[in-house]
Amino acid sequence: MSDVKAIVGVLGPGESATPDDNEMAFELGRGIARNGWVLLTGGRNFGVMEAALKGARDVNGLTLAILPGDSDKEASENAIIRIATGMGSGRNVINALTSKVLVVVGMAAGTASEVSHALKAGRKVILLNQDEITVQFFKKIGGYKVMVANTVDESLTMIRDYLAVHVH
Amino acid sequence: MSDVKAIVGVLGPGESATPDDNEMAFELGRGIARNGWVLLTGGRNFGVMEAALKGARDVNGLTLAILPGDSDKEASENAIIRIATGMGSGRNVINALTSKVLVVVGMAAGTASEVSHALKAGRKVILLNQDEITVQFFKKIGGYKVMVANTVDESLTMIRDYLAVHVH
Amino acid sequence: MSDVKAIVGVLGPGESATPDDNEMAFELGRGIARNGWVLLTGGRNFGVMEAALKGARDVNGLTLAILPGDSDKEASENAIIRIATGMGSGRNVINALTSKVLVVVGMAAGTASEVSHALKAGRKVILLNQDEITVQFFKKIGGYKVMVANTVDESLTMIRDYLAVHVH
Amino acid sequence: MSDVKAIVGVLGPGESATPDDNEMAFELGRGIARNGWVLLTGGRNFGVMEAALKGARDVNGLTLAILPGDSDKEASENAIIRIATGMGSGRNVINALTSKVLVVVGMAAGTASEVSHALKAGRKVILLNQDEITVQFFKKIGGYKVMVANTVDESLTMIRDYLAVHVH
Repeated sequence: MSDVKAIVGVLGPGESATPDDNEMAFELGRGIARNGWVLLTGGRNFGVMEAALKGARDVNGLTLAILPGDSDKEASENAIIRIATGMGSGRNVINALTSKVLVVVGMAAGTASEVSHALKAGRKVILLNQDEITVQFFKKIGGYKVMVANTVDESLTMIRDYLAVHVH
Repeated sequence: MSDVKAIVGVLGPGESATPDDNEMAFELGRGIARNGWVLLTGGRNFGVMEAALKGARDVNGLTLAILPGDSDKEASENAIIRIATGMGSGRNVINALTSKVLVVVGMAAGTASEVSHALKAGRKVILLNQDEITVQFFKKIGGYKVMVANTVDESLTMIRDYLAVHVH
Repeated sequence: MSDVKAIVGVLGPGESATPDDNEMAFELGRGIARNGWVLLTGGRNFGVMEAALKGARDVNGLTLAILPGDSDKEASENAIIRIATGMGSGRNVINALTSKVLVVVGMAAGTASEVSHALKAGRKVILLNQDEITVQFFKKIGGYKVMVANTVDESLTMIRDYLAVHVH
Repeated sequence: MSDVKAIVGVLGPGESATPDDNEMAFELGRGIARNGWVLLTGGRNFGVMEAALKGARDVNGLTLAILPGDSDKEASENAIIRIATGMGSGRNVINALTSKVLVVVGMAAGTASEVSHALKAGRKVILLNQDEITVQFFKKIGGYKVMVANTVDESLTMIRDYLAVHVH
């Protein structure tokens, strides 16, 4: 199974992403690609999705887009493998299930649905630079599956440690 | 359109529901049915889903189950109309989209995904008897679409007021 | 379980439906409603979906629409219970799984996907007034689960016989 | 967009695949990989899916599995990128939408749902070595979008010609 790619999801807001969210997402995308993992996002060309995809492509990483639409017309040009689900927000559960581990940058309603689906399915979720309310809420519903990171580097270390133990 | 039924969703934990959650869900189900609305739940025979369905059936209400499985084998016997989605937790987005307004009793990861999908789609969500963290988190991502109720009666009044204005 | 409603699906083309398709669908809808079954369709306001819904409402039957969109805006006014899936053609599998038995009037690509999903899931499918190619193709992939009817009355008798044995 | 991978789907029966189906699927997988396209299948470890994946891996191609389950536990070991949908047969529409062009080897109910979804969405479908009934049925519902090939090489030429014009 040594050729199988470990998939790491980066979740976060679209249009409502802050400059800080986007900067961290870009660095995360770079780090994920440098580690040889596949970056998964919702695949659109704005917000945290686009920033992470750009970061991964900046170092020639493989990127995977799970798109809400029924074609790849609205995909980011940084999305290399493009899955057209035609299921709108119904695709959020696929983002959660397909990722071995997920990092969350920023927060919005769509993002919260992905985190919740991930926790329901037993996936590990890393909350990066989130406020106290968000951390407490997801700890309440996700328990030990929720980890808290303050920096991109810390997130990457957590992913590496997790994959080393749980993915073969 | 006078024959079209307004659908009200009741969301909450399955196996991890508390006795208080179940008691409130039962009363909610009764109240929803008495008002002539259709009760929607995830349709399984335990937790908040089952309690609400029992309440609605106690007063002969019409109940609608959006099931995760590919048949109605695991449906509550109190579910009158049974939708078999075969989509697992992917059906949570259908619960959110199909309800005109939703009431949330108790909290768990699956429930949080439904609330998040509902807010993303612009649905009104009533948080019934939730703790401060939960209220603050969903107000942060849902704004004015989130309402807070302390009793079942208060929830029913909010639903009535909302449907009077928004559904014809 | 005596209050649980048996759901019967009527499938067929939308815009490409012929006048004959629509006339048969209308009569089917009436017959299904008169037998006390719930009529399921894809819920849009044209083609076989709309004709069957109109027939069922003509005799005050209960109708169930599984909609492709993320709200009930595009539903037929004859759809009483409206499920908003937001999944586009992805909802076709739900039409198949939710119906205890399905009748097919006319043929198009979307219809063929529903029949195929139904046969894959072991549902009984009645082909009403179909040409020889269609009958032979679905018999090849569905075997004994495929039945052939020449008239609406014959279809209704087949449904009644099937439900009497298989649904309690 | 020069790094974006063109995705080609190979569809066909699982357990009911014949030795001939599997042999052609293996050669198709090899040919698809050699052309630098990504091979998409339903991702399970039997039937046409597995044979095509094996062929593509035999020449080190990139393979994409759209899985019915909620994890990658049941994936073929030849599936490199693994999408866990948790949607059962609901994932068939994703197979259709994600592929730029699809080749069909053998026939069964699940396969027929994928071909039908593909035609509904306007995708090009190549029927390889199919019987007369199958060809006539899909020509009837798919018109010019349906092409007929007698050999693996003929299929590969059709894909190449189609992608040269339609994908940039």
